[in-house]
Amino acid sequence: MNPLYAAMPTTIFETMSGLARELGAINLGQGFPDSTGPGDVVDAASRALFTQSNQYPPMAGLPVLRQAVADHYARHQGLDLSWADEVTVTSGATEAIAAAIFALVTPGDEVVLIEPAYDAYLPLVLRAGGVPRFVRLAPPDWRLTAEALDAAFSPKTRVAILNNPLNPTATMFAAADLALLAERVVRHDAVLIADEVWEHVVFDGRPHLTAMALPGMRDRTVKIGSGGKIFALTGWKVGWMCAAPGLTRVVAKAHQFLTFTTPPNLQAGIAHGLGKDERYFTTMRADLARSRDRLTQGLEAAGWRTQPSVGTYFLSVDLAASGIALDDTAFCDRLVREAGVAAIPLSAFYHADPVVSVVRLCFAKNDETLDQAIERMARAR
Amino acid sequence: MNPLYAAMPTTIFETMSGLARELGAINLGQGFPDSTGPGDVVDAASRALFTQSNQYPPMAGLPVLRQAVADHYARHQGLDLSWADEVTVTSGATEAIAAAIFALVTPGDEVVLIEPAYDAYLPLVLRAGGVPRFVRLAPPDWRLTAEALDAAFSPKTRVAILNNPLNPTATMFAAADLALLAERVVRHDAVLIADEVWEHVVFDGRPHLTAMALPGMRDRTVKIGSGGKIFALTGWKVGWMCAAPGLTRVVAKAHQFLTFTTPPNLQAGIAHGLGKDERYFTTMRADLARSRDRLTQGLEAAGWRTQPSVGTYFLSVDLAASGIALDDTAFCDRLVREAGVAAIPLSAFYHADPVVSVVRLCFAKNDETLDQAIERMARAR
Ligand SMILES: CSCCC(=O)C(=O)O
Ligand SMILES: CSCCC(=O)C(=O)O
Repeated sequence: MNPLYAAMPTTIFETMSGLARELGAINLGQGFPDSTGPGDVVDAASRALFTQSNQYPPMAGLPVLRQAVADHYARHQGLDLSWADEVTVTSGATEAIAAAIFALVTPGDEVVLIEPAYDAYLPLVLRAGGVPRFVRLAPPDWRLTAEALDAAFSPKTRVAILNNPLNPTATMFAAADLALLAERVVRHDAVLIADEVWEHVVFDGRPHLTAMALPGMRDRTVKIGSGGKIFALTGWKVGWMCAAPGLTRVVAKAHQFLTFTTPPNLQAGIAHGLGKDERYFTTMRADLARSRDRLTQGLEAAGWRTQPSVGTYFLSVDLAASGIALDDTAFCDRLVREAGVAAIPLSAFYHADPVVSVVRLCFAKNDETLDQAIERMARAR
Repeated sequence: MNPLYAAMPTTIFETMSGLARELGAINLGQGFPDSTGPGDVVDAASRALFTQSNQYPPMAGLPVLRQAVADHYARHQGLDLSWADEVTVTSGATEAIAAAIFALVTPGDEVVLIEPAYDAYLPLVLRAGGVPRFVRLAPPDWRLTAEALDAAFSPKTRVAILNNPLNPTATMFAAADLALLAERVVRHDAVLIADEVWEHVVFDGRPHLTAMALPGMRDRTVKIGSGGKIFALTGWKVGWMCAAPGLTRVVAKAHQFLTFTTPPNLQAGIAHGLGKDERYFTTMRADLARSRDRLTQGLEAAGWRTQPSVGTYFLSVDLAASGIALDDTAFCDRLVREAGVAAIPLSAFYHADPVVSVVRLCFAKNDETLDQAIERMARAR
């Protein structure tokens, strides 16, 4: 057996959701909303089960979805993607990340990872034979600095991975920080895997800056998006990779031997959704911002100290500032068992020497659930 | 970029289906039926979109599907699988193959591959750092021999991969041949990845022998199945891996970072289907056997020489015996362009020195399509 997988724990998201189910706890751990998703998108996916083929669609995805992705990014991010040469549909963003890493990393290549890092990145880089070089962000601002980047990039850097907005900190990188990163990716002739699954989940009028639009990055970025995250249908596992034709050809080769293709009816549903007008996205953001505010205000009123959340489904609680002496893992364990609230410890996003004073809560839940969680957390202090 | 993927061609199945679409040819290439799948299974998947959560299901799959898989194999193959510890749902059998290979192969491990081999195996083994050792089957019987196995197995063998029934030859391995293989897997303390996606597609009353039931193999087999192949819904991409608890723990770790999970409504549909009674499977086999016979008889009457097909959706045409001097690739190219029939050249299943006198046709099509294909092929001699 491969020692990497033999030694690997089950992902914290699965573990915590399992505990929540088992203990009947409120699940603010794994990042999924408790909504049923937009009715018209679900209807479109249901209709497609009966009106279009249920056999293998094209390996790169249904043309209607690839076109919808390109059109969507033209409208929302000013990108000029050719759907036929630059868009590959995947079975969720996780598959896109795996395909991009397996396609771009050759054993011995260095890969720059920004920590805290989504927990799939490091094992995939290691399984691909890559050598991780970490850029550590410091709380509470989690900013990229020239010094940290310069310490991580080297002549052996072939790939860097960016998650923006950043899960788990709920921050967005400033234009100046992204420019620092882009400059180094270009200088080292590397490729950036830009995991932008949270691109639509941004608040307070702050725009999301897509990595592809950074100077020099149009043709050296693999932009990853997620229909599940955009439309609150996280189980559907419909994602995509957008990249210049030369990159697309290679990442699609990895995709063809990971899942080959993605269920056509769900592709049709997401294609329908991507055509929604600006109002849908504005309303979604406003609704989520209200939930964020409700959880923030409730927790603050109960004496918890939180950190600003400008994107994603997540709110960070600062344990140290809240007067909790436990580390994040011990606290999350106590919280789910004694208070009945599942959360994610920030340390799950580090390979070593984690920040242990922050806990992540998912606020993409209805008001009642949030209020109950606040009540339970008020008693857990 | 990883040189393996940079140099890799698009899979022959995608290429031929693309050509068929473009040229308006009859597509007997890629292995999918032209049916819409069983109505009650499609209905169940549609209902589940509205009645159960569309958010992340458990990483290992919905309990209802894992139970259905275990029950199904208890009834049909006499296996005693524990659904909770021994069944992992994947996004299609391709993902299962990838997860099993990435989990079980460590760079430098030798992996025994039986050629002709499904085209995903070799690139995945190479990407995992494995060293392929080939067992070559000889036409027209495609049998395993002790000599060929002994030449491939070594003290470094960690994994062997078996596809039974065998795509593309449409043959099944005899019990004696399987025993030769099992004996060597056990002797070398290796693991067998048993790709049994065609297990239900077997004809003329011949039973399928599952690798897990071979002596000593219960706990050293990863059995891979496919809901898409069983229910003629190839686009759904719902598959699974069955293996002893210690193996399941490791292959599930690879799965968690390839797709993480599989759409819950499609899982529910397949779970419903697996509960069907024996009659469904008998009828399905009888229908497919009729299609096989129709294509065989039509082609033979037109002067084509075919090889026996005892399982899978496929029929092999022997070019040499049919008096065609072209090799399989050149012939398939001519056939799709000039006669309007897409087929798969057998050489696509070899890493080197291919058998070039056989072409694979998919007969899982309605009578009209088969008759048209026969007519076109009659003129292509
Ligand atoms: C694939 S489970 C994790 C989902 C997620 O994005 C998160 O909770 O961070
Ligand atoms: C994933 S496309 C190939 C489908 C198939 O099993 C075949 O045609 O052999």
